[in-house]
Amino acid sequence: MTTDLNNAVFTAAELDYLGTQRLGRLVTLGRDGAPQVRPVGFRVSAGVIHIGGYDLAATQKFRNIDRDPRAAFLVDDLASVEPWQVRGVEVRGTGQAIPATDGVEAVIRIHPWRIITWGLDNGGRPSARRIDPAATG
Amino acid sequence: MTTDLNNAVFTAAELDYLGTQRLGRLVTLGRDGAPQVRPVGFRVSAGVIHIGGYDLAATQKFRNIDRDPRAAFLVDDLASVEPWQVRGVEVRGTGQAIPATDGVEAVIRIHPWRIITWGLDNGGRPSARRIDPAATG
Repeated sequence: MTTDLNNAVFTAAELDYLGTQRLGRLVTLGRDGAPQVRPVGFRVSAGVIHIGGYDLAATQKFRNIDRDPRAAFLVDDLASVEPWQVRGVEVRGTGQAIPATDGVEAVIRIHPWRIITWGLDNGGRPSARRIDPAATG
Repeated sequence: MTTDLNNAVFTAAELDYLGTQRLGRLVTLGRDGAPQVRPVGFRVSAGVIHIGGYDLAATQKFRNIDRDPRAAFLVDDLASVEPWQVRGVEVRGTGQAIPATDGVEAVIRIHPWRIITWGLDNGGRPSARRIDPAATG
């Protein structure tokens, strides 16, 4: 089930790539609408990016998402220096800041509405597609 | 002179760290105010982040900065997996999108107004400071 939902959102190549990278970058908007960006650990499940972390609910990114759900998330790396080849996956999405409940830690979930990818199986040029919100769990 | 200006904005530890990393992540705002984020090559000069790239003036990030100068820029890496130690420098700043002129390629410049750093010489907790705009070249 999880795999089916993931595959409805991310391609197999994207899921493989996301599985090889440990850090993502989460972008949120501050109270003034200006952007902020931090490295985060993440996992992908049911087509949704899940972001945890120590004392997450006390962080500015958690409060930002709670106030304004507009978010972006990036996983990238430098596949080759010579020639210069960067690859990555950018997710533009709607965030949810979910507080801790009994026995379950707080989490930020990013539901993709647009995915842009480059350098995986599609050469260096970015390719973008829109995601049906109904496809994410 | 360049070094003096850099040091008025970035600390020596930050400059050393930025010099070791090849990729940064540039965050811009789309027309609707939602964030976008891409990996970019960069250099630091006179306390300013300089971002180039192939056909830069035709990119969405260049148009975004030209319309709304609010930007963020992140350099990070995973210093250790066990224990989990992420380090990095986040710059919140004001962008300039400068078109190509005779013999000079287009560039995006980010003038920092806030710098947040963690895991360099200050342990894992982020430390933040405001930058005097007059300090950047």
